[in-house]
Amino acid sequence: MIFRRFLSSSTLPPSIRQLLSTHTPSDPTAPVRVNGWVRSVRRQKRVAFAHITDGSSHQGLQAVFTNVDLAKGLTNGASVSLSGTLLESPGAGQDKELVVQAVDVIGECEPLEYPIQKQTLTTEYLRDHCHLRARTSSVAAMLRLRDNTMRTLHEYFQAQDFCYTNTPILTSNDCEGAGETFHVSHPDQTASTSSNAVTTSPREFFGRPAYLTVSSQLHLEALATSLARVYTISPCFRAERSQTSRHLSEFWMLEAEWAFTHVVDDVCQFVEGMVKHALRQDSNDLSVLSRDIGEHRQRSLEKAKGGDTWMRLTYTDAISELEKAQATTRQFEFTPSWGKALRSEHERWIAEHLADGPVFVTDYPASLKPFYMRLNSDGKTVACFDLLVPHLGELVGGSLREERLGLLEEALEKQQLSKADYGWYLDIRKYGGAPHGGFGLGFERLVSWMSGIDNVRECIPMPRWAGRMLL
Amino acid sequence: MIFRRFLSSSTLPPSIRQLLSTHTPSDPTAPVRVNGWVRSVRRQKRVAFAHITDGSSHQGLQAVFTNVDLAKGLTNGASVSLSGTLLESPGAGQDKELVVQAVDVIGECEPLEYPIQKQTLTTEYLRDHCHLRARTSSVAAMLRLRDNTMRTLHEYFQAQDFCYTNTPILTSNDCEGAGETFHVSHPDQTASTSSNAVTTSPREFFGRPAYLTVSSQLHLEALATSLARVYTISPCFRAERSQTSRHLSEFWMLEAEWAFTHVVDDVCQFVEGMVKHALRQDSNDLSVLSRDIGEHRQRSLEKAKGGDTWMRLTYTDAISELEKAQATTRQFEFTPSWGKALRSEHERWIAEHLADGPVFVTDYPASLKPFYMRLNSDGKTVACFDLLVPHLGELVGGSLREERLGLLEEALEKQQLSKADYGWYLDIRKYGGAPHGGFGLGFERLVSWMSGIDNVRECIPMPRWAGRMLL
Repeated sequence: MIFRRFLSSSTLPPSIRQLLSTHTPSDPTAPVRVNGWVRSVRRQKRVAFAHITDGSSHQGLQAVFTNVDLAKGLTNGASVSLSGTLLESPGAGQDKELVVQAVDVIGECEPLEYPIQKQTLTTEYLRDHCHLRARTSSVAAMLRLRDNTMRTLHEYFQAQDFCYTNTPILTSNDCEGAGETFHVSHPDQTASTSSNAVTTSPREFFGRPAYLTVSSQLHLEALATSLARVYTISPCFRAERSQTSRHLSEFWMLEAEWAFTHVVDDVCQFVEGMVKHALRQDSNDLSVLSRDIGEHRQRSLEKAKGGDTWMRLTYTDAISELEKAQATTRQFEFTPSWGKALRSEHERWIAEHLADGPVFVTDYPASLKPFYMRLNSDGKTVACFDLLVPHLGELVGGSLREERLGLLEEALEKQQLSKADYGWYLDIRKYGGAPHGGFGLGFERLVSWMSGIDNVRECIPMPRWAGRMLL
Repeated sequence: MIFRRFLSSSTLPPSIRQLLSTHTPSDPTAPVRVNGWVRSVRRQKRVAFAHITDGSSHQGLQAVFTNVDLAKGLTNGASVSLSGTLLESPGAGQDKELVVQAVDVIGECEPLEYPIQKQTLTTEYLRDHCHLRARTSSVAAMLRLRDNTMRTLHEYFQAQDFCYTNTPILTSNDCEGAGETFHVSHPDQTASTSSNAVTTSPREFFGRPAYLTVSSQLHLEALATSLARVYTISPCFRAERSQTSRHLSEFWMLEAEWAFTHVVDDVCQFVEGMVKHALRQDSNDLSVLSRDIGEHRQRSLEKAKGGDTWMRLTYTDAISELEKAQATTRQFEFTPSWGKALRSEHERWIAEHLADGPVFVTDYPASLKPFYMRLNSDGKTVACFDLLVPHLGELVGGSLREERLGLLEEALEKQQLSKADYGWYLDIRKYGGAPHGGFGLGFERLVSWMSGIDNVRECIPMPRWAGRMLL
């Protein structure tokens, strides 16, 4: 019997990005090996070029074949292993290039059959080829941008000593999502179901109905009463039937809660710092993606990440501005009026015309908001905000949470929610409760806004919406 | 109308941990303010002490009341805001302490009613008080350990240029999980359901049945054929009915896939490097939690994180060792035999007696493993591994994936899976496929193993298992 033992200094060979950013060999003619996919081939009489990518950067690598025969078997999409010498490139567009000595085609790709052809493919076509669309340079750039943005957000929270936590996805709480909550069952149970068994069956896998979470907030609040500062980046689910460019049935939400915060402006300030930190990230992919969004939107994003504090105004002031605008121009389909929800057209007008940038609208009427938001001293508005941004609308929503037990119980009653269901949530206030607040940010919306990618369906690897779930 | 504008240099005041690790004021008598919860109070005649925590560290802060009247209103669990001076502590156990000048009890906590009493509470009791158990020092330490471990793992992947991605939670693929897959529906649809409508109803929200993911692997493979190196830390779901200390219905799995890897030992080497990196993390919480696990297990963990490469042996060799042991001692309930699955008792014997440490068992019979594992040249085993560790069993499972289209189609047939269902998965091989491999690690199992916390139910904030889903 042989016990095989190997060195444990685990590392993979450098990626193309690493190779290009760090390669300074003592012997510049030393051979290097590069693995990747052919993005394009250009053949001339005495020389051929191939653009090779391994997904580690937008740039990829230029491979040069002075022996054109070596490039013979190369087709777009094929996976290859190349060896050669990495030299200064005389051409424009790259600092270094690989002068190829040997080629190994690892995985062929039949040029006529390959679904990812070089010409521009429509968004709809790529959605239909969800399993291959990451091979386009724009979807690959979006995926790296997601990664880098998450990293940037983690940095921001870590610097302020937040604890990253994982709140449950399966929950017994379906109240917040109302009609938009997915129900989870186990086949054993659905097989024998009768039409009303779903909510009452003793065969529920967990002994009670289970739903997919619509928000981590309530659970985060429980943890914030121990760890003081917590956040999560978690999948959330809404059985939303509207087909907009801002909604997905499965999306990722960044949510944070922290204790010992007393005014909603402090929460706004934290959010503004966080979003600016994300906007300011060092990302070549972000630059590439936002290159084509037009000068106006580019200027708007530049302005947003600058030093100026974003505008804050109350819902009451916002309504009064909307009413003024409506009186003179009659531009809104829905008449703005105190006590009514802001419509999409109102939100965009506030962000794009009134503020000309991101804007926190604060202190909405209690009747428009969930029960857990903290009542202001006027007795009719709550200490909350929506962050509205140009071209998108709501990016973040947050508030102080009602920490006063009596007022929270009243709010439950007003919204006809059962005190028994929320017993645990009341306990958080009962035993050493503290003023606290937090917010939720739709991660795909952030990616969409900062990159100019039009639809959140293109801001997540494999999107799900009503009627559509590939793979 | 007032547009309120504030400075946007967003930061929260320092946490207790930050205060203790960085506080070097020019004026040591300058007052500081600390928010947190009272963990305990000790009253003497002329002085009182309180242990204050804000969850930012295990240590917390010692508050000293030279005016004992100030400590009057303090009870365990109450939230407080203290101001005073941070001075060198004359006592043992802490470098600095807060000499309190003013106390504000923010949230009272009735001592007799508070469910988190100072005496030791049973694990079962704390599970029943899931919403409050993070207030115990051990659960708080576990939560910080999760955070720090994730950070450590991200570091390892980032250094090797992996892209963090989010694969879908809702999937149309229920094959891998067989009977252990949860079904997802929308109330509109279940309300009108008949017993066989679940799989055929045109009213499925997504137009086809939706399941909760049991593994991100197949989706990661699609992304790895573009980005080359991808990973995710994602919730996974198994409708597992067995009540063991290693299983949850909802758990977090770290999964990675990368292209251009050719031998399973390279995957093992990567995994070993990663787990050692996690074991070697700088974490006071890890030290605190693993303090009580006994000398034997402590030595075992110390050895595991050392420089020696972990043992690798083939399934075939493992069976032969098990057979030898069985022949002499008859210690196993289940007779080991080539072609049969390793039982829990076998796995533990291999890790605890044969290897006396973590051990990779490789190259299992193809018949014991899923269809996607790469067939070895012997035609009967596959290029896979299970990482077994003492006291736990399987921590990681991985393999090379079958990249040869013909062999993959044969494997699908052999396991009676539909080629149509896996069309997209076959495409990945068809168009520029590359040899690739990957693995999955149960995150709660890692936390359990490294900390010595017995049950994975105590390694996640709000655990779910058959019959149990609080909050």
